[in-house]
Amino acid sequence: MISRSSPSAKRRTSVKKVLIANRGEIAVRIIRTLKEMGLHSVAVYSTADQDSLHVALADESICIGPAKSSDSYLDIEAIAAAIEVSGADAVHPGYGFLSESETFARRMEEIGVTFIGPTADTISRMGDKAMARQTMKEAGVPVIPGSDGVIDSFEEVESVAEDVGYPLVIKAVSGGGGKGMRFVHEASELEKQFKDARKEAKNAFGDDRIYIEKFIERARHIEVQVVGDGNGSAIHLYERDCSIQRNNQKLIEEAPAAILDDASRKEITERTAEAVAKLGYRGAGTVEYLYVESEDAFYFIEMNTRIQVEHTISEEITGIDIVRLQLEVAGEGALTLTQDEVSINGFAIECRINAENPADNFMPAPGPIDTLHFGMGQGVRIDSHIYPSYAVPPHYDSMIAKIIVHGVSRKAAIRKMMHVLDETVIGPVETNLDFQSYLMNHPNYQDNNVDIKFLQNNHIIDQKGE
Amino acid sequence: MISRSSPSAKRRTSVKKVLIANRGEIAVRIIRTLKEMGLHSVAVYSTADQDSLHVALADESICIGPAKSSDSYLDIEAIAAAIEVSGADAVHPGYGFLSESETFARRMEEIGVTFIGPTADTISRMGDKAMARQTMKEAGVPVIPGSDGVIDSFEEVESVAEDVGYPLVIKAVSGGGGKGMRFVHEASELEKQFKDARKEAKNAFGDDRIYIEKFIERARHIEVQVVGDGNGSAIHLYERDCSIQRNNQKLIEEAPAAILDDASRKEITERTAEAVAKLGYRGAGTVEYLYVESEDAFYFIEMNTRIQVEHTISEEITGIDIVRLQLEVAGEGALTLTQDEVSINGFAIECRINAENPADNFMPAPGPIDTLHFGMGQGVRIDSHIYPSYAVPPHYDSMIAKIIVHGVSRKAAIRKMMHVLDETVIGPVETNLDFQSYLMNHPNYQDNNVDIKFLQNNHIIDQKGE
Repeated sequence: MISRSSPSAKRRTSVKKVLIANRGEIAVRIIRTLKEMGLHSVAVYSTADQDSLHVALADESICIGPAKSSDSYLDIEAIAAAIEVSGADAVHPGYGFLSESETFARRMEEIGVTFIGPTADTISRMGDKAMARQTMKEAGVPVIPGSDGVIDSFEEVESVAEDVGYPLVIKAVSGGGGKGMRFVHEASELEKQFKDARKEAKNAFGDDRIYIEKFIERARHIEVQVVGDGNGSAIHLYERDCSIQRNNQKLIEEAPAAILDDASRKEITERTAEAVAKLGYRGAGTVEYLYVESEDAFYFIEMNTRIQVEHTISEEITGIDIVRLQLEVAGEGALTLTQDEVSINGFAIECRINAENPADNFMPAPGPIDTLHFGMGQGVRIDSHIYPSYAVPPHYDSMIAKIIVHGVSRKAAIRKMMHVLDETVIGPVETNLDFQSYLMNHPNYQDNNVDIKFLQNNHIIDQKGE
Repeated sequence: MISRSSPSAKRRTSVKKVLIANRGEIAVRIIRTLKEMGLHSVAVYSTADQDSLHVALADESICIGPAKSSDSYLDIEAIAAAIEVSGADAVHPGYGFLSESETFARRMEEIGVTFIGPTADTISRMGDKAMARQTMKEAGVPVIPGSDGVIDSFEEVESVAEDVGYPLVIKAVSGGGGKGMRFVHEASELEKQFKDARKEAKNAFGDDRIYIEKFIERARHIEVQVVGDGNGSAIHLYERDCSIQRNNQKLIEEAPAAILDDASRKEITERTAEAVAKLGYRGAGTVEYLYVESEDAFYFIEMNTRIQVEHTISEEITGIDIVRLQLEVAGEGALTLTQDEVSINGFAIECRINAENPADNFMPAPGPIDTLHFGMGQGVRIDSHIYPSYAVPPHYDSMIAKIIVHGVSRKAAIRKMMHVLDETVIGPVETNLDFQSYLMNHPNYQDNNVDIKFLQNNHIIDQKGE
C-alpha cells in the first residue's frame, strides 16, 4: 500500500546527484534540501562517522577514510574517488573542510564535476586578504582605511597616517599572534612605533614589510548574505549581526542587525550585492564587515565564499532556502529570485550549541548522548545531527546543534530563545547550553549593548579568551 | 554566574498565573507561550501523567486525580480546587476535555477566575446545533439551506423542499447513526420518505420530529480562524482546508485552502470575522464550513469556541502566536492586532501523528517510546509532548505529535512533509507515520483532488471507515 514516489519536482538546477563533502549538521541540512528538490544525495564519511545521521539520511554513502580529517574529509583524492564511484555530477562542500580550498575547486573543475560554490579563481582571490581587500574596494565596498598594500619609507607612513588618522595600527605583512603589530595613538609616536614594528617583524618572520590600517576599537561584526549567478546578477538576503564571539568563534547570531536603521541597512546590503554582481560571483557568500556605530560606518573584513553556519537566521527572516539557491545557481544555473522578492519578516537568533565545558576554558567535551530533548514549537528550528545514543566523536568541530528561533521582534526572539534553551536537555555530554542561557539573560545583551569584545568587556572571559 | 531572570516582558494581558486544564501537546504548547510572555504556569495532571512533559515544564504542577478523565481532567471541582490551591487567576482549557463545557466556564465565572475563552453563554449557544445555525445565519454567515427548525406537516415539507431543491435530506431532531434519516432525490419520492423517516424516528427515539436540509454530496471542510475581543472587534487569521479526515477525525490540515481564489477567500474570511464581531465573541474560535467547489459556496457546519489542534498552520502562514492572542483578549483584554497586520506568507501543512495501528483498523496503540527522532530543519515545526523513554498512556487521545511544515507553495510543503515523515522514527510504539506518508504520496492528494470522503473515494478505507 505504501509507495514512496516523489511528485515530479520542478527541477531548476542542472545537477542530479550531489555528493556532500562534509559531515555533521551541515551535511544533514544539505541532504534535506536535496530530498525536497528530488535530487539524489551521496554522503561521504570517515570511519568515526559511520553511525552519523548524514550517512543514514543520504541515498548512498561512501567511506572515505579514517577518523583524522586530513585522511578523509580533507583528502581531495579520496573525495574525487567517491565522486567517481558514485557517479555524482556535483559536490557540495558545506562549510569548513574543503569549502574554501582553491585546490579542491580546481580539481572538481578538472574532472568536470559541478562545484557548488564559486570558481577556483574567485576562491583564490578572496582567500588572499590583501587581494580580497583590493578587489572589494574596487567593486565599491568600504574597506578599512589604510595603506594599499606594503609601505616602505617613513615618508609614506607619515602620509598614509595623515589620511587614515589616529589611532592606527601598524601590521606585519607576514604577521600573526600580535608580532610586528603596533598601535599608534598620536603622530608623535609614529616614527618610533614604525621602526619597532619593522624590527620585530624582521626578527619574528625574517620579513620586515608592514602595512597600516585605521585602528577600529569598538565594533560589531555585521555581515551581508549574498547569492550570485556567476553572470553578473546577485541578490542579498539582508544582514546578520554576529558580534557575540569568543576567540573569533561566533556564539550567537542575529538577523537582521537591530542596530541598523533602514537607511544604513539599505545602503550596505545594496552596495554589497552590487559589488558581488560586479565581480561576477557565483554561489552563496558572505561579506563580513566591522561596523562602527558612532560613525555609522562599515569596514570590509573578508568574504566567505561558502555557506555559513549562521545562514539559517537569514532563511528564517526571509523564508528562503539558501541551499536551494546554491543548487539553482550551480553550474550554469540562473537566479530564480529577484531582489524585490526578498523581504525581512520578524527577527531570528541562532545559538550554537557545542559539546564543550565552559567551566574548563571551553575545552571540547566529546562523548555519548543518552538524554536528548530540544525545546520546540512555534518559531523554533533545530538544525542538528545528534540523536539519542549518538556519541560525539573527538575528531571534529564541537558544534552539535544550532538552536534557531524566530519571533516578531528581537525582544520576542530573546524570550523565546531563553525558554527553548531552558527546556533543552542534552546529556551526559557537557555542553554550553547554560552558558548560552547566561548570555541570553545578560542585561547588556538584552539591551543590544554589544560589540565583538562583549565577553571581555563584561568580564565573562578574560583578554586571553579564558 | 548563571542567572535566570526574565527580561521585563511587556504584559498586554491582565492575567498573571495561568492554570492549564489539559495535558499532552497542547498543554506543552500553552506553557511555552506563557514562558515567553513571562506568565506563571500551573500544570494539572492525572496519576497516569506524572512523568508528562507538561508537568516537567510548568512552574508548578498539581495532581488532580486518577487516570480516568472523568475523575481528573473532566472533574470541574478537582480543577477548581487546584486553582484555589495554586492561586491561579486564569485557566486555559486547551481543546477537548472541558474546553467547550458551559458548566466549566460558568463555574470559573462564579469563582472569579478568567476563563481563557468565550463566555459560558456563548459556549452554550454554539454548543446547540440549531441555535448555532440560527445565530450564525442572523450574523450573516451562509448556512445549509433547509427548514428553520422542526417541520410538522407535509404541506410545510413540500414548501421547504421547493425552496431547498433536490437532492435533500430529511433528518430526525433526535437522530443519530443514520436512523430517521432519508435522502430524497426528486419530488415524487418526498411524501413516502417523509412518512418513513417519521416512523423510523418514532420507533428509534420515541420522537418523530424532523427537519430538512439540502443534501451536500461532495464538499471540502474549510474553516476560518477568528479571534474576537468580546467588545465587538474581531479579526480572522485566514482559513484552513481540513478535508482529509477519517470518521470526522482530521488527519491532514492545510493553510491556506489552495482551492480558493482570492475573491472567495476574501469573501468568506471577512464575512466570518464580521459575524463573529457582531456576536461580541471573545477569544479564539473556528467557524467551520462545508465548501462546494462546483457552486463556490460555503455552508456553516459549526463553531468551535476554543483553540484547535490545527491552529499551528495558521500560525505558520501568518507568523502570529494564537495562544498569545488568546491571553491578550482574556478577561478585559483588547486585541493588539488589526486585520491589516495579518497576511498570508507561504503554505503550511500539518500531519497528526497518532499512536495507533492503521493495519488494525487504526486501533489506538499506546505503549513505550524508546526510539525517537523527528525530521527537522528549515520550515519544520514539531509540536509534541513525547520524549525518549516516555510511555504513551492508554487513557487519552492517541495523538502524540503534530508535524508541521511551512514552504513557499503547497507543492513545496508537500515535498518537505514527505521527507520529514520519511526521516522521523518513533518506536516501538505503533504509529500512523507510514500511513501519513502514503497519503502525502497519493496522486489525488498531491493534485488537491480531495473532499471530505477522500479516504473512501480512493478506497483507502471503506464506507465504515475501516
